[in-house]
Amino acid sequence: MSVKYAKRMDYIKGSAIRELLKLTEQPEIISFAGGLPAPELFPIEEMKEVCVRVLDTDGKAALQYSPTEGYMPLRKIIAERMKKSGVEISPEHILITSGSQQGLDFCGKVFLDEGDTVICESPSYLGALNAFKSYLPKFVEVEMDKDGMKMDELEKALQANPNAKFIYTIPDFQNPSGITMSVERRKKLVELAVKYNVPVVEDNPYGELRFEGERLPAIKHFDTEGMVIFLGTFSKIFSPGLRVGWVAASPEIVRKYVLVKQGADLQSNSMAQREAAAFVQMFDLDAHINKIIEVYRKRRDLMIETMEKEFPEGFTFTYPNGGLFTWVEMPEGVDAAEVLKKALEEKVAFVPGGSFYPNGGNENHCRLNYSCMPEDKIVEGITRLGKVFKKL
Amino acid sequence: MSVKYAKRMDYIKGSAIRELLKLTEQPEIISFAGGLPAPELFPIEEMKEVCVRVLDTDGKAALQYSPTEGYMPLRKIIAERMKKSGVEISPEHILITSGSQQGLDFCGKVFLDEGDTVICESPSYLGALNAFKSYLPKFVEVEMDKDGMKMDELEKALQANPNAKFIYTIPDFQNPSGITMSVERRKKLVELAVKYNVPVVEDNPYGELRFEGERLPAIKHFDTEGMVIFLGTFSKIFSPGLRVGWVAASPEIVRKYVLVKQGADLQSNSMAQREAAAFVQMFDLDAHINKIIEVYRKRRDLMIETMEKEFPEGFTFTYPNGGLFTWVEMPEGVDAAEVLKKALEEKVAFVPGGSFYPNGGNENHCRLNYSCMPEDKIVEGITRLGKVFKKL
Repeated sequence: MSVKYAKRMDYIKGSAIRELLKLTEQPEIISFAGGLPAPELFPIEEMKEVCVRVLDTDGKAALQYSPTEGYMPLRKIIAERMKKSGVEISPEHILITSGSQQGLDFCGKVFLDEGDTVICESPSYLGALNAFKSYLPKFVEVEMDKDGMKMDELEKALQANPNAKFIYTIPDFQNPSGITMSVERRKKLVELAVKYNVPVVEDNPYGELRFEGERLPAIKHFDTEGMVIFLGTFSKIFSPGLRVGWVAASPEIVRKYVLVKQGADLQSNSMAQREAAAFVQMFDLDAHINKIIEVYRKRRDLMIETMEKEFPEGFTFTYPNGGLFTWVEMPEGVDAAEVLKKALEEKVAFVPGGSFYPNGGNENHCRLNYSCMPEDKIVEGITRLGKVFKKL
Repeated sequence: MSVKYAKRMDYIKGSAIRELLKLTEQPEIISFAGGLPAPELFPIEEMKEVCVRVLDTDGKAALQYSPTEGYMPLRKIIAERMKKSGVEISPEHILITSGSQQGLDFCGKVFLDEGDTVICESPSYLGALNAFKSYLPKFVEVEMDKDGMKMDELEKALQANPNAKFIYTIPDFQNPSGITMSVERRKKLVELAVKYNVPVVEDNPYGELRFEGERLPAIKHFDTEGMVIFLGTFSKIFSPGLRVGWVAASPEIVRKYVLVKQGADLQSNSMAQREAAAFVQMFDLDAHINKIIEVYRKRRDLMIETMEKEFPEGFTFTYPNGGLFTWVEMPEGVDAAEVLKKALEEKVAFVPGGSFYPNGGNENHCRLNYSCMPEDKIVEGITRLGKVFKKL
């Protein structure tokens, strides 16, 4: 029997890369392919206290159905924390999602009809592109430099694509490039969004993981017209396994997301939402984040240092001021997917860059993650990778 | 500013009924409107042990990202438990979802293009209809009698709708009608699915909550061709707040659901999946289910008894052998939404039936839930409702 699927299923396919990367789960492989937080930093002991507290004080509600919008004390905590990036928003305009991946899927569901345009950075986050693909859009990529998306290019894209439904950006320590958008461009981006009446989706999973310098105001900080949809998450600062993220947007827009969530999964885990709130109330989340920053900064430093030493000429890379990734450009004509095969022979892995470009091309890039590998393995893995590169 | 949403947002709307039902959250109202499990039966003390055990033995994995397919020991437990309803399926063909609501949404995403047909029971579960609506289908309703969907009517619907993508059914203690599909019809349903090459979505959240008689084989029990997609959940037998459900289907079909889940939310909560598994390993889930059955059976009995005594002539209702709901038919021409307004004046609430019919009509029905109201309130609430009915 062969049943008939929806057309979108022709575009949502397993990737050869993903199959290849399954190999990286073997323990002898040093993998820079993932995007995982360091598990040794998870607050396991604290979580035991948190769980018992939640069940003791609010057990029935924690195990019961709860409102689609999310647990109000958590929404208040999030609204309060968003002030740090200059965003003043009422808790009522925050929807709790099952990780920010769900927020990305909902962006597609709320805005995209088949053939609509999504404007995104080039490269952009693979998981977002895949989520949007379910809704059969076209992608228009906007080039970046060291200050993020080029605003003149963005304006051209907006002019050329009157059916653009939103502009997707990761302004802080972008995945995959590690690039941070400058303050000037954030301001300009909101101006353009208003001028062309196209909302901005500001995906910000890494903003709190800044290794040096001052935290920049969120794009949403400049949003006076309700044109910015902010996606946040506890995945990188607390625990991804709990799947607690959020959408913060204007009342009109967040209402649409709530309606979509009702159909999608009714609500996020009642207990996990209470656990996140209780953790913030019982412990010092900022101190925990600082601990993460210390560890990741060292790992970033060591990776960059080793790359400078071990990578041959013609291989350049970005210097991220935070987040989880650096982005390597190999010489023109090199195919990173082929390089990966050779790297796997040397027991080291990365993600080839091609799939971060929705319209293809740019196969001579790769993404390296430094957050979840101990320091000795970073040195060893990058050294191996340098050898592979030198042989090309 | 007014941004442009996707076309589907014209069909996903907040309902007037939902707004009205917000009133039922006031403590003085006796509400038969919800579909909640009884919170006083939640295993809160056991959950404290479960959480500590999971964090002690597997804390890093519980807080980390995990595979989209779900936690393998949980998938094994589910495969084992499904044998009770005659389903032999390998754990590899089970995908863990965030409640079975997510499974419903994925059915839409995997199968439906705009204008495709969904065949469903008349009436059918509101939350499923809403999930499917995101994908802009047409609905064809098939009449039921006391043995469920009428198979001759179903065959006519299949013949008349060659673009039907799936048949949606809740065979056990249907929401909203409380009706159970007979074994003969289950067999026949699979035959028709194969004959017309249209898969069956078997949504079974209540099957384990049977108050009397033998558990019937699942529709999937008769599925030799991989045409039945089974949706299950821990929500009604353990905890809805944890959002742990599953899809069990043929390897080809479940693979599509996995791809869709990658984009939708990457994975379900790693910790909740381990909690569900640990609960089953550490405690006796069947004994827990028996406790729930005892309580619900008493409530069902009391509700039916009181309805028999207090409802006036011309008001009929179903006798459910399990599950959470009974379904009331009022005299032709009565509008249950109007009756609800009068009921709320008497501080009693229910869900008017109209919205369970995707193509409208049948406003003279209402759904009553007996699972989450204590016995004295059932008697008091049904008595009040009887008064409202008598005044009509």
